[in-house]
Amino acid sequence: GTAPAIVHAQENIRWRLASSFPKSLDTLIGAAEVFARSVSEMTGGKFQVTVHAAGELVPAFGVVDAIQQGTIECANTAPYYFFGKDEAFAFDCAIPFGMNERQLNAWMFDGNGMKLLREFYAPYNIISFPMGNTGAQMGGWFRKEIKSVADFNGLKFRVGGFGGRVLAKLGVVSQNIPAGEIYSALEKGALDATEFVGPHDDLKLGLYRVAPYYYYPAWWEGSAQTTLYVSAKAYNALSKEYQSIVRSAAAESHVITQARYDARNPPALKQLISEGAKLRRLPKDVMDAAFKASREVYAELNDKNPNWKKIYDDYSRFMKEQYQWTSIAESSYDQYMAAQKL
Amino acid sequence: GTAPAIVHAQENIRWRLASSFPKSLDTLIGAAEVFARSVSEMTGGKFQVTVHAAGELVPAFGVVDAIQQGTIECANTAPYYFFGKDEAFAFDCAIPFGMNERQLNAWMFDGNGMKLLREFYAPYNIISFPMGNTGAQMGGWFRKEIKSVADFNGLKFRVGGFGGRVLAKLGVVSQNIPAGEIYSALEKGALDATEFVGPHDDLKLGLYRVAPYYYYPAWWEGSAQTTLYVSAKAYNALSKEYQSIVRSAAAESHVITQARYDARNPPALKQLISEGAKLRRLPKDVMDAAFKASREVYAELNDKNPNWKKIYDDYSRFMKEQYQWTSIAESSYDQYMAAQKL
Repeated sequence: GTAPAIVHAQENIRWRLASSFPKSLDTLIGAAEVFARSVSEMTGGKFQVTVHAAGELVPAFGVVDAIQQGTIECANTAPYYFFGKDEAFAFDCAIPFGMNERQLNAWMFDGNGMKLLREFYAPYNIISFPMGNTGAQMGGWFRKEIKSVADFNGLKFRVGGFGGRVLAKLGVVSQNIPAGEIYSALEKGALDATEFVGPHDDLKLGLYRVAPYYYYPAWWEGSAQTTLYVSAKAYNALSKEYQSIVRSAAAESHVITQARYDARNPPALKQLISEGAKLRRLPKDVMDAAFKASREVYAELNDKNPNWKKIYDDYSRFMKEQYQWTSIAESSYDQYMAAQKL
Repeated sequence: GTAPAIVHAQENIRWRLASSFPKSLDTLIGAAEVFARSVSEMTGGKFQVTVHAAGELVPAFGVVDAIQQGTIECANTAPYYFFGKDEAFAFDCAIPFGMNERQLNAWMFDGNGMKLLREFYAPYNIISFPMGNTGAQMGGWFRKEIKSVADFNGLKFRVGGFGGRVLAKLGVVSQNIPAGEIYSALEKGALDATEFVGPHDDLKLGLYRVAPYYYYPAWWEGSAQTTLYVSAKAYNALSKEYQSIVRSAAAESHVITQARYDARNPPALKQLISEGAKLRRLPKDVMDAAFKASREVYAELNDKNPNWKKIYDDYSRFMKEQYQWTSIAESSYDQYMAAQKL
């Protein structure tokens, strides 16, 4: 170039990233690893993000507190874990009968989604970036077949996240059991069923041996976004260049993480079936009762929680338009293709 | 930080990006603008990419030649425009009855897609990066209703890209008419129908006034990826940091561009319908005849074009597994949601 070379002296930066996920969930914690590698590569190693699995620095569900307290600079998590602080966290991850991945991205990146969430997060010292999604999840593993919605009444079901609120209306007894203890709880009958993620992650747990009925779809997670939480204080201390690098690296990891799930789920599903998993679709009366229950929960929250209501109004209006369009070109194409011998 | 501040003196770089799209297609050329802005922000303005609309530097379809000749450093295009050079270009954009957007991303970012395409592009001095997708397109605007596949015989149909090869087997007379002349050609009857993109872009052309039947889905574009072509020579001359910045900025633009289409298509579709567009689904016998014709075209290409065959083998095997999985959790969820009053 003919312009004089202006050298920007970028500082060396070292951030700690606490993940809510263990190393074994390679795709979920992988989102953080892809992000960290990209940031390092773009800065010639001057901006380093060290990735710590759940429990290494702070407990899995302690990442929001840790960012508020300044213990860590960033985290990779599933925001619905924090619905106990405020139900509005769930919009940044999954709400029952919510948007699918493409639709949620549209709301986040070109609708009001990211803007509304960042307003909501401001008092928590958090700036959020979508960074990964699992796509529509499986409904999980059941010891017995589900014949109708009555079979959910009294069901001891392990469920993570906000979906438990709606399942409770169907009479489900939600259990919160660490991943490592699910197998034996199902074996002993302390649990009747569990949801987890999808074939790629589920394969690692081997649950088909003790709970062979593999139901779909997880109406509580039509998509489930994972998010990069960045301390606003740490972010605002960065140069504009480094701020942009954080933003772009998160977006790159967002694409790659969904691609990994989509590429790895199909062979895992085949293997699960070959090893004895029995695929079942949830009966329509279950879906209908759950849909109705979800709308009751949302009506209650609209009354009680102004943070929820503000975001829900925009989310639900956007989703309604999305499904009107998704049903036309996208779904008719997919339905045709799914019926062909490929 | 405690480490000494090592200053990397990054060069000033200026690249010219030639788009195959006009300014009016704001979402398509927008992919290049998002990319250029991100690269500039991440480098504090030291790496500048100037975006030029179709025709400014080189003609819309001249971008591959221009990269080979070293006239430009990069381009934003729909690779299927170049199927006349080699049909294998189409895999990087759309083939009839091919993968949807999520599936194509999975193949590109976690399957063999990007790797196989870059091998194919090497003799063209091109390194490719997925940078935008339209999602499933609409089948376009027709002056008369389509009752059966017989109505395609002799139809004067404007179609861009590789889909014309399959449409020809149905008796379609493909026309290649610039966007600015479509309206009057339909009005005069020089054209019977045209495909374009989807509601957001189609709204600008006002075609419903002369060809009111708006068909779906575009089986020739179940998704259509646009791509960043970078001159391998220019790319290899960059520092590792700048190479990573190009890669990450392209991925960021990839997410944002699909999000823009998905967010903007639904209100555009509503407006088109309110102004008189008549939505119609293509009859099943049209879909079936076209599907059969596509497989004939692919069998011919597998015999004739080793570049095609090498990529098609991997693409079609991957797609088959994808649809087995997409049909389970993802499609059953979307179908349920589409049937609800939201």
